[in-house]
Amino acid sequence: MKSDIDNLMQAKNLDAIIVFGNAEHNPPMRYLTGGGHVSHATLIKKRGEQAILFFGDMERDEAAKSGLKLIPYSKYDHEALFKKANKDGLLAGAMRAELMFKDAGVTSGRVGVYGTYDLSAIFGMLSRLQTLLPDVEFFGEAREDSIFMYAMQTKDEDEVTRIRKMGAVTTDVVHKVAEFLTSRDVREDEVLLKEDGSPLTVGDVHSKIRLWVAEHGAELPSGFIFSIGRDAGVPHSAGNPADFITLGKTIVFDIYPAESGGGYYYDFTRTWSLGYATPEAQELYNQVKEIYDKLSENFDLNAPFRNYQKMTCEYYESKGHKTPLNTKAPVEGYVHSLGHGVGLNIHERPFSGLLMGDDHRLAPGVVVTSEPGLYYPEKGMGFRIEDTLWVRPDGRMEILAEYPYDFVLPMKKWKKD
Amino acid sequence: MKSDIDNLMQAKNLDAIIVFGNAEHNPPMRYLTGGGHVSHATLIKKRGEQAILFFGDMERDEAAKSGLKLIPYSKYDHEALFKKANKDGLLAGAMRAELMFKDAGVTSGRVGVYGTYDLSAIFGMLSRLQTLLPDVEFFGEAREDSIFMYAMQTKDEDEVTRIRKMGAVTTDVVHKVAEFLTSRDVREDEVLLKEDGSPLTVGDVHSKIRLWVAEHGAELPSGFIFSIGRDAGVPHSAGNPADFITLGKTIVFDIYPAESGGGYYYDFTRTWSLGYATPEAQELYNQVKEIYDKLSENFDLNAPFRNYQKMTCEYYESKGHKTPLNTKAPVEGYVHSLGHGVGLNIHERPFSGLLMGDDHRLAPGVVVTSEPGLYYPEKGMGFRIEDTLWVRPDGRMEILAEYPYDFVLPMKKWKKD
Repeated sequence: MKSDIDNLMQAKNLDAIIVFGNAEHNPPMRYLTGGGHVSHATLIKKRGEQAILFFGDMERDEAAKSGLKLIPYSKYDHEALFKKANKDGLLAGAMRAELMFKDAGVTSGRVGVYGTYDLSAIFGMLSRLQTLLPDVEFFGEAREDSIFMYAMQTKDEDEVTRIRKMGAVTTDVVHKVAEFLTSRDVREDEVLLKEDGSPLTVGDVHSKIRLWVAEHGAELPSGFIFSIGRDAGVPHSAGNPADFITLGKTIVFDIYPAESGGGYYYDFTRTWSLGYATPEAQELYNQVKEIYDKLSENFDLNAPFRNYQKMTCEYYESKGHKTPLNTKAPVEGYVHSLGHGVGLNIHERPFSGLLMGDDHRLAPGVVVTSEPGLYYPEKGMGFRIEDTLWVRPDGRMEILAEYPYDFVLPMKKWKKD
Repeated sequence: MKSDIDNLMQAKNLDAIIVFGNAEHNPPMRYLTGGGHVSHATLIKKRGEQAILFFGDMERDEAAKSGLKLIPYSKYDHEALFKKANKDGLLAGAMRAELMFKDAGVTSGRVGVYGTYDLSAIFGMLSRLQTLLPDVEFFGEAREDSIFMYAMQTKDEDEVTRIRKMGAVTTDVVHKVAEFLTSRDVREDEVLLKEDGSPLTVGDVHSKIRLWVAEHGAELPSGFIFSIGRDAGVPHSAGNPADFITLGKTIVFDIYPAESGGGYYYDFTRTWSLGYATPEAQELYNQVKEIYDKLSENFDLNAPFRNYQKMTCEYYESKGHKTPLNTKAPVEGYVHSLGHGVGLNIHERPFSGLLMGDDHRLAPGVVVTSEPGLYYPEKGMGFRIEDTLWVRPDGRMEILAEYPYDFVLPMKKWKKD
């Protein structure tokens, strides 16, 4: 939780942190400011002290919403610094940063560097700043091990409420897509048709999904997946817009909307086969559902998340599939890890990979996905079931947005002969 | 243009470049790959050679769309590297990067670092990589001076077509908003009403704008501004969702949608007063329109962009306003610079600030905004007119999406007594 930041800084021996970039679509800045239209901001926090937000004057109203201590960039004379730096913009930036660190009371020690921003500018600025602040050691952390990832992995009630709300948006959109698809007319060759009688494409469905998400005021900052057939067998293929929607093929619909401005995500997948399913597809779907249910029954409070990746691999191996446990980087069978934390990042701690440590665990307050899948692109099919679950303080795992698991969706205007 | 990259690398004495991050919402990567759902990619380009895109296996279909030379990360044994690095994820990443650089034929020289990505991880990885590749000098550039900003500032025909298309989306949405506002019923206190008879709020209009942009399959990755009254007088205030929409107050509507996935932007602003305008507001609007027109008549091919910022300041000063020419960081009057380039970045070269050099000029192929404004938050009003203009190869400045400049929008169901 946010209140853990000082302790986490202490544990990593960090005397201060600096966060660069916009307050939107930039998880560490969003986490500390609460969002808002504050672009090109800088935040410096000395351990044990309140954070200072440095911002452009034009965004003073938005900056004020953060409730942080505020200093406008205009305090520092950009024109004078630029001249003193012989028009080297990065040096001028470093000279300003030196003044900002001094205003924050930071002139020595270890300083963690964070934020999502233009790498080139910050890398160039920091190398100049290093010579101006020789007693400061700038420090970068692996994304999955950073103090923010540790703080963020435990959600407070407000955060769970926000994720749950995005879950409601998600299932509403998924329901609309299912209603839309199953209401279509079907051509003789089993291709779905639009109102105007032309074939319905994956691209048409993509447009509907974007629209229905926008109707909720939500965003799709990391995209989404609605793919059919072979593409459904490639886990991260977004779907080919030109593909027709056809009965009896697997559709993977993986949707992860976020609050407007880069807020909290929800993550969700269903696999459908319209009208009917081939026996092979039905059998593979049943396996995915069987391990999904087995996992749900076996999740234990505080257990390492990777235990369930191992359980999933072992189940699939018993059914004759390749998995990361028996094959290096498999491209068919079970090809990814079971799940991940969800919050301001679509993928955050805890992670479930087989190499992850014991601190990636199902601790109270954690929000994770469970998403076993099977992928056979050469057979033209893929499967995944995914829900987002909250590890409640009482130890129970709660799905934050319930939705049915039907694989075959009956078509309202079509019946198999 | 993209074909200038090798020459720009030569001019900056760069032997290679490395770009980190997703292909979406990451201009340098998007520029070189063409976009697509490729996340956590790495691109290395040795000067004079084809770029290599390193990608996760699950995204091979999306990576293939780039047409670049491809190497999947799975070529490098992550598990072995992670063990060899004693589970230091950043060191394992640096060891992988060392192998990638070797595969790209880069083991010495100056390497430019680019991309929008997690600063902490890349900063930490690069400091470890430096010890593995001691003969490489990693190099960061100021955003406004980077080789990408130079290459991107001249648009080819395909890029202009994309920006023009976003212009058409923009003006369609602006037209819908104007129609929606002017069709409302008006309460006795001059507050606009919704269908259900309750007051129309800024937040309601924000929702409509998001929806109408989504209907075009476009995005608002940098937000937008629809603000009224005092907020209209603060250039970057997005607008207070709770504010009522009231007649006779200035509304600043600044909208900058982009192609889905973080593509090309358009940038556009109109200022409206619904029903009627106060004489003071009308007079200030007329000044903004007068200098807007004067600028349009005076734009000269290849002239430094800052000349027109100076012209704007001098005009406003003749009318008694503060400007950046006579006041340091003014917060009322004319408080920003005239415009900026528009492309994969909402703000890119050329820039128009008074300190900008001669290479920020209206060269053929450049796409820029012209956006003079006036801001008086204490008077509860603000004004800006903005269009996006293409400097055509024949030297003419062409507005890429025409839209009327009416200030007072007559209400269909309301008349002033």
